[in-house]
Amino acid sequence: MNPTLTTRMANLRARMAATKTDLVVIGPSSHMLYLADLSPHGDERPVLLMVSPTFAGFLMPALNVDSARQHTDLPFFPWADADGPDAALAELLAATGVPAAPSIVLDETMRTDFALLVLDALGGATRRFTTDTVGYLRSRKDDAEYDALKKSAVLNDAAMAAGFAALRPDITEYEVATVIRDFYKANGATTEFCSVCFGPNGAFPHHHTGETQLKAGDAVLIDTGGRIHGYPSDMTRVGYFGTAPEGFGQIHSVLDRAVEAAIAAARPGAKARDVDKAARDIITAAGYGPNFLHRTGHGLGIDIHETPYITATSDTVLEEGMVFSIEPGIYLQGQFGLRLEEIVIIRNGVAEILSDMPRTAVAGG
Amino acid sequence: MNPTLTTRMANLRARMAATKTDLVVIGPSSHMLYLADLSPHGDERPVLLMVSPTFAGFLMPALNVDSARQHTDLPFFPWADADGPDAALAELLAATGVPAAPSIVLDETMRTDFALLVLDALGGATRRFTTDTVGYLRSRKDDAEYDALKKSAVLNDAAMAAGFAALRPDITEYEVATVIRDFYKANGATTEFCSVCFGPNGAFPHHHTGETQLKAGDAVLIDTGGRIHGYPSDMTRVGYFGTAPEGFGQIHSVLDRAVEAAIAAARPGAKARDVDKAARDIITAAGYGPNFLHRTGHGLGIDIHETPYITATSDTVLEEGMVFSIEPGIYLQGQFGLRLEEIVIIRNGVAEILSDMPRTAVAGG
Repeated sequence: MNPTLTTRMANLRARMAATKTDLVVIGPSSHMLYLADLSPHGDERPVLLMVSPTFAGFLMPALNVDSARQHTDLPFFPWADADGPDAALAELLAATGVPAAPSIVLDETMRTDFALLVLDALGGATRRFTTDTVGYLRSRKDDAEYDALKKSAVLNDAAMAAGFAALRPDITEYEVATVIRDFYKANGATTEFCSVCFGPNGAFPHHHTGETQLKAGDAVLIDTGGRIHGYPSDMTRVGYFGTAPEGFGQIHSVLDRAVEAAIAAARPGAKARDVDKAARDIITAAGYGPNFLHRTGHGLGIDIHETPYITATSDTVLEEGMVFSIEPGIYLQGQFGLRLEEIVIIRNGVAEILSDMPRTAVAGG
Repeated sequence: MNPTLTTRMANLRARMAATKTDLVVIGPSSHMLYLADLSPHGDERPVLLMVSPTFAGFLMPALNVDSARQHTDLPFFPWADADGPDAALAELLAATGVPAAPSIVLDETMRTDFALLVLDALGGATRRFTTDTVGYLRSRKDDAEYDALKKSAVLNDAAMAAGFAALRPDITEYEVATVIRDFYKANGATTEFCSVCFGPNGAFPHHHTGETQLKAGDAVLIDTGGRIHGYPSDMTRVGYFGTAPEGFGQIHSVLDRAVEAAIAAARPGAKARDVDKAARDIITAAGYGPNFLHRTGHGLGIDIHETPYITATSDTVLEEGMVFSIEPGIYLQGQFGLRLEEIVIIRNGVAEILSDMPRTAVAGG
């Protein structure tokens, strides 16, 4: 096993001891990639990584054994299509030495049928999800991960600039997104997502980029992320075409101050809820509290959404190495919606922004 | 609601009655797309469609309400990031009129945390997966689905031909896959998957297409599928470059006969296991039983793998409209592996092949 994976497995076992966890069960997911460098064919055949204090091994479909063997030297418990996974699962569970009525951690992202296979085999298990074990470890990025996320963010700055530079009368949201997607591809990255919203469409936080055409006086919101060398980016910037709509400048200013307040609150030892509150208080004081429809942010690592989540109720304590978005938004139905999003890392006691792009509104046209 | 969705919902309730099901719970998945034309942003925020005999509605993150409303007129039970989904879930469950200790169907593909949210809220539920309700309905394609799958298959024939036509000395597997991916794109389709295997790589049923270069005497296996107008294709053909490796012709012939035998066995009223056995018996009789590592096939519809699965143990009874693959393979480690795959539909009492491409080995070079 490579040194990074050996370290991660040792760290996981330390967290298991600290949280009194008997068994961690991981499905085909970014958790599996993080722990074992394996990203299996994601079909309906159960694939599970199980880690106990004394053992780690895979439940593995027989037809994937040869391919998977190239990625990991952990033991496999293979099962054939004709037999189903039950017998192999029983052997794997026995090998883990899991006690009766164990305390287990389940990968919250895995398919329901995979998880229930395990829960049914382990009568009386107490279960948690991965937040305080694998999720916790993943939330504290090491130096190599910081470098990868920084490079990804800087490339994303250029992708964002290319998107705004493409604005012209009657261009569609979809065409702008295509410019950005092509930019990622030309630079060796892949598109993670790309949301382009013109005018009133920006008031839907999860608007589907479509055939809406740009016209003078539209607000423009672009929320985009690529992936390069395994790590993603995620950033939102706003602008307008021709003249800014009524109220744009004031709302942009409120959001910019909300981002600054959240960044100031994001210190080691602070809780995630403190960061959410810092942003939300600015927006509420400006009279837009009911128009900020979502949490302030989410963690970013191998996944574009992962621990820690920056919500009004989260008691997660921020630590060095944690990476997350700060993305307050104000949505005015029928008019426009604005959001400003930075990815920050807690580093040397402060929240450092990964992007080099200012949050200034981009004037197009 | 459009007439197709109204019919599907009525059919689901009839199956629920026949299977004594009190509640069907569907996550963001192809099941949700099939029942409600909704394919939500697939993040960690719980989205659930619940259907009871008297009610259907969605648990929905507040920030997705506006976007989702454009796809469905079913009622939403929205929840905000700051509150979490528990209260909205309780309201939705109350609206469904679900009895105590209900018999529920869970979408097997949904995230584990979504499913456990429901199971924890419904103490004492008896649970099944969707195989005999939504899965059953989806397995019997209507005429519009048949047309879509046929068109997708015929386009895939041309993609496959383009892939084999690209073979030349030293070309990599990845480059051939790029030819096929570009073909899909140029024809308005998207790539679902594309596996290209040269020489010994074909002996791994789930080989990752890579940098291996083609050389004279290599067997070539291409398993590829695209998607157009919402429906996918999936086909495997084999060939060789220059001269065929020792044993190629004989194994190709065994597989071709196995496909024919399975097609002959695939009749309304037959069981899926009968189809598997028909293919497997031919291969076993030829002495290659241990080299046929997987099931004979899988259903194909909105998903490239869905009900019915054609396995040695499946008692699923085949019916008119069912669509599935027949794909026997023989894998010789260190030498090569061959597989021949057809998609068939049970139609007018027989298994009709969707592709128009012969299964003849393609001679390249």
